[in-house]
Amino acid sequence: MTYKIEFLPHNYTVEVEDNESLIRAAMEAGVHINASCGGGGVCGKCRVLVEKGNVEGGISEQLSAEDQAKGYRLACLSSVCSDLTIRIPVESEIDTSRLNVQAGSRHTAKAMDFNIDELRQEGLFIPPVEKIYLEMETASVEDNQADIQRIVHHLRTKYDEHRLTTSLSLLRKVPDVVREGDFNVTVTIARPVRDDGKNEIVNIEPFDTTDRNYAIAIDVGTTTIYGQVLDLNSGEVLAQHGEFNGQISYGEDVISRIVFAEKGSGLQTLHEKVVETINTVIARIVKRAKIERDEITTITLAGNSTMTQLLLKINPKYIRRAPYVPVSILYPPFRASQIGIDLIDHTIALVYPGVSSYVGGDIISGVMASGMYREESLTLYMDIGTNAEIVIGHKDWMVCTAASAGPAFEGGGVKFGMRAAKGAIEDFSIDPETYEPMIITIGNKKAKGICGSGLITLVGKLFEIGIIDSRGKFKRDLPTDRIRQTDDIWEYVLVYSDAAQIDRDITITEPDIDNLIRAKGAMYSAALTLLDEIGLGINDLERIILAGGFGSYVDLESAITIGLLPEIEPEKVTYLGNGSLLGCKMNSLTNKLRQDVSHVVDMMTNFELAETPSYMDHYMGALFLPHTQLDYFPKVKQRLEELRKS
Amino acid sequence: MTYKIEFLPHNYTVEVEDNESLIRAAMEAGVHINASCGGGGVCGKCRVLVEKGNVEGGISEQLSAEDQAKGYRLACLSSVCSDLTIRIPVESEIDTSRLNVQAGSRHTAKAMDFNIDELRQEGLFIPPVEKIYLEMETASVEDNQADIQRIVHHLRTKYDEHRLTTSLSLLRKVPDVVREGDFNVTVTIARPVRDDGKNEIVNIEPFDTTDRNYAIAIDVGTTTIYGQVLDLNSGEVLAQHGEFNGQISYGEDVISRIVFAEKGSGLQTLHEKVVETINTVIARIVKRAKIERDEITTITLAGNSTMTQLLLKINPKYIRRAPYVPVSILYPPFRASQIGIDLIDHTIALVYPGVSSYVGGDIISGVMASGMYREESLTLYMDIGTNAEIVIGHKDWMVCTAASAGPAFEGGGVKFGMRAAKGAIEDFSIDPETYEPMIITIGNKKAKGICGSGLITLVGKLFEIGIIDSRGKFKRDLPTDRIRQTDDIWEYVLVYSDAAQIDRDITITEPDIDNLIRAKGAMYSAALTLLDEIGLGINDLERIILAGGFGSYVDLESAITIGLLPEIEPEKVTYLGNGSLLGCKMNSLTNKLRQDVSHVVDMMTNFELAETPSYMDHYMGALFLPHTQLDYFPKVKQRLEELRKS
Repeated sequence: MTYKIEFLPHNYTVEVEDNESLIRAAMEAGVHINASCGGGGVCGKCRVLVEKGNVEGGISEQLSAEDQAKGYRLACLSSVCSDLTIRIPVESEIDTSRLNVQAGSRHTAKAMDFNIDELRQEGLFIPPVEKIYLEMETASVEDNQADIQRIVHHLRTKYDEHRLTTSLSLLRKVPDVVREGDFNVTVTIARPVRDDGKNEIVNIEPFDTTDRNYAIAIDVGTTTIYGQVLDLNSGEVLAQHGEFNGQISYGEDVISRIVFAEKGSGLQTLHEKVVETINTVIARIVKRAKIERDEITTITLAGNSTMTQLLLKINPKYIRRAPYVPVSILYPPFRASQIGIDLIDHTIALVYPGVSSYVGGDIISGVMASGMYREESLTLYMDIGTNAEIVIGHKDWMVCTAASAGPAFEGGGVKFGMRAAKGAIEDFSIDPETYEPMIITIGNKKAKGICGSGLITLVGKLFEIGIIDSRGKFKRDLPTDRIRQTDDIWEYVLVYSDAAQIDRDITITEPDIDNLIRAKGAMYSAALTLLDEIGLGINDLERIILAGGFGSYVDLESAITIGLLPEIEPEKVTYLGNGSLLGCKMNSLTNKLRQDVSHVVDMMTNFELAETPSYMDHYMGALFLPHTQLDYFPKVKQRLEELRKS
Repeated sequence: MTYKIEFLPHNYTVEVEDNESLIRAAMEAGVHINASCGGGGVCGKCRVLVEKGNVEGGISEQLSAEDQAKGYRLACLSSVCSDLTIRIPVESEIDTSRLNVQAGSRHTAKAMDFNIDELRQEGLFIPPVEKIYLEMETASVEDNQADIQRIVHHLRTKYDEHRLTTSLSLLRKVPDVVREGDFNVTVTIARPVRDDGKNEIVNIEPFDTTDRNYAIAIDVGTTTIYGQVLDLNSGEVLAQHGEFNGQISYGEDVISRIVFAEKGSGLQTLHEKVVETINTVIARIVKRAKIERDEITTITLAGNSTMTQLLLKINPKYIRRAPYVPVSILYPPFRASQIGIDLIDHTIALVYPGVSSYVGGDIISGVMASGMYREESLTLYMDIGTNAEIVIGHKDWMVCTAASAGPAFEGGGVKFGMRAAKGAIEDFSIDPETYEPMIITIGNKKAKGICGSGLITLVGKLFEIGIIDSRGKFKRDLPTDRIRQTDDIWEYVLVYSDAAQIDRDITITEPDIDNLIRAKGAMYSAALTLLDEIGLGINDLERIILAGGFGSYVDLESAITIGLLPEIEPEKVTYLGNGSLLGCKMNSLTNKLRQDVSHVVDMMTNFELAETPSYMDHYMGALFLPHTQLDYFPKVKQRLEELRKS
């Protein structure tokens, strides 16, 4: 259910979902309302008049009874539940001429969508494990062939299944299962594509169990491990869960983990910890999905190169030393139980291949899931985080690299930085005359800090409005108390302590902005370097895919304004979410990805930025908002000119 | 060094090895000397006169000083050390007319010989694991491909090695080994033929270790487990050892083991016991061969179907129940360590396939080793033992079956039966006039009992000379005290207690003979039944291969006389020895066998004798010496006629 909202006096309209907060609706419509507490009705500044329709809530002691009677409500406390006409009071209305050139509505990347039925129609839904129910002749003295040969014969003659292999664990259970089912059994056949047509009978159950066939997908993140249970008949995700990686207490990032792994039994410890977390995740999702462990036939895992090597108990020490050599690109399939994963003997584990020490399986997984390797259009794939990975290419070739962006995108190195959690400032606009902020926090709670996507929006808006210059420095002479110098550091006060959840003023400082500029500069220049190396320019990009938890909240306009993303139509930006997990899911559902993956790895050329001379030049040029080369950002340039002119 | 010996007065000559005992030389020449104690100079009856040349020893208090001075010696105490002329004194000389038609010299089957150089020339020496030494470029920032990819690339471009796979255990050691060897490494490549061209890099070592490459072959016998260490460069057996199967205390034969395996943790216990014994054998031979465990790359094992299933911890219960279904014919390759074999992680174990519940991997292994599946001539392969297995066929087809022969061949069910050990009567002749015996024991010790091959010779000679009839009954009226009735049982005294190692007379009884007849009848009729089923006759056989510990000592003439073996030229009988072990050895040395084995199993048709109606008729006919159908044994018939006529 959506409702139409009209904001007066300028007749901006927007359509929003039932129950959306009114202040978010205004932000989306590009309407500024003074709101400096982040929500929760603390500052009482977001007073609006509901002229038509009804809202739910919006009443507060900050509103006089008289105002309430007139129809005034606090926008941050009001939920939309009908079509509305809302009038913004004069005190928070901004100059029309400016409004007309200001950024329109907020854009986030649209999420990539997968339709199992579509996959099925395209013939891409080929589960890598299949169950087949066999009704066989009972053994007799005239026909006393061995149990396995009876099964193989049946599969060959009735189901055209050839080149079947077995395992000891299967042989051990076959005789009893065959007789328990009175020679009616369900066999599970795994088709490990890399073995070229060799199919393994991995399980046998009495009677018909073809309706129960499941897989597990695991994203082995440095911080968090996510898992899903997938129904291989329907393609549905039956359960999902994430847990902090148990390795965290041994180091926050991959480098500190590698250092720990080099000491004594460090490798063993980290290996055990990650497997423990995986087992916790599996226990949770298996229970939630109401399935049995022995109904799970395959598990796909993806992680960066260090996480992958720790998972497989391969010392990652050479990953952090020049010349940065990982042990392998491709990993052989193995039994999950072999590395301590708490799944039944026959469950086959597949681990996504990486490309280099810093472009690992999590990225390949995402690239596979995104499908960019099958498309014509030149695509930029970005996994934004402390370690940022970039892939550029299309169906004929791909190049990739990794850049160290620093922790700014995750709220690190930012004075009031925090992870994307309740109370984090995630959206922002500013009155170009009064310099008063409009602040929206996650969960509409009193503000507590600034999350990564919020920081991008903040810097983007401050730069657009001209409060900071292209080097990220505040104008020293603006007529507002919000810009001030504390302990020699210039800052802008977002929320005064009386309206905040913490007992200090929440500010954004010049060093914060500087960190963000360096982070976005690293990413942008990495993309530029890759393009340069292959003789292409930034304007050749036709599509952007954002991966990582981060990407879903980023205001694309702001991200382009600060020069994090190349200038591109917002509708050409897709948000993939957890690409690593998605690739594992897709890998469980269709052999198409398994068939393609080694080809994808083969066609991908890795660049070490440290060894690419042009990178440093590109990086230096990217340490400006949006860039020293304004030609890369013609629309931003134009908008800025219009804004500044007015 | 061999010497020529002439026996007077009948001028029989024989050539024997240096140091051979004189009495064995006489036996081989077909010369009867009264000798009823088995050796050791106890009875003093084997007095001979050395007319020319010298013997070592032969002096005893049984010989007067005068006789000694004349040149008399005891044959059983004399060793040959020069050419000799020996006169047999009149008292032990037999009638010339009879001698002329008596069985000539003793024949045992010639051992099958394998020549590695010949195999090499034929292109059949293709070790299934190969070591290749690589001198690679050191990794650099310009060339920082992953370690495994560097190795694979090197193998592909310089050695034309393709389709290479790896394992987790390999990946774990690669980074350090590569750097320890400064990028000079030896890789071990396994070529598991059943995986059609997929080669696995199973090991990596620093520097050049190509001269050290070993395999292990194991015969998993119900009673004894034999192992060999093989040098894959030279094809030589470096060490060999046998141990009693640790399962023996849980049952002597396969049926009692199956029964035990069905109870509680019986399967686990028997599995552990056999693995324990294998580990003991391996420890011994590895030490003796002076090699390291991590230089062993492959182990091949063969056993009967029950032994194989117990080894692999697959409950064999359905093997002993109609319709006698084993779990599988072919077994997948696996890591030896997976079943507890104490070899390094990467060692691949191959287990020989079987054909049915009672024709197992030990037989297939022997058939592979014998090469009969590649030959034109129709061959009978017999593994003689309690459970006797028979294979008939050639390069185009093969049939097989198993018969329960009972324990007579192994000295069981025979009053003075014993295993082939020191003091066991293994050879025998008889004076057709006096019915006095000439007895030779293993080790020339005082007699203790009768071993399987001795029993065959005894019965053959007793039958030839007419002391027993074709039903195995003693003639009741012969003028000798040696034939007597004790407790209603007729018997022939071989050794009186005063000359024996035990305190009783050693005899051969009618029930002993009866047991042997039933055992040989089961074997012969099994062969006849197989031939019958495929429309062939016994005379179509062109070659016989004897396998099993038993075969090497059997006097072929006697074995034919009693109707155990079909009538055939002795030179067409080959002794294979431990065929199971030999097949494992050959399998380790050349992939040719591995390539052929599933084809051999496919082309082999198994017959269950219990389900083959003609078997009982054939069996009843075979319960005579040599057979009711004397036409099957024309030469025996002729010799018997000549002997009886005289």
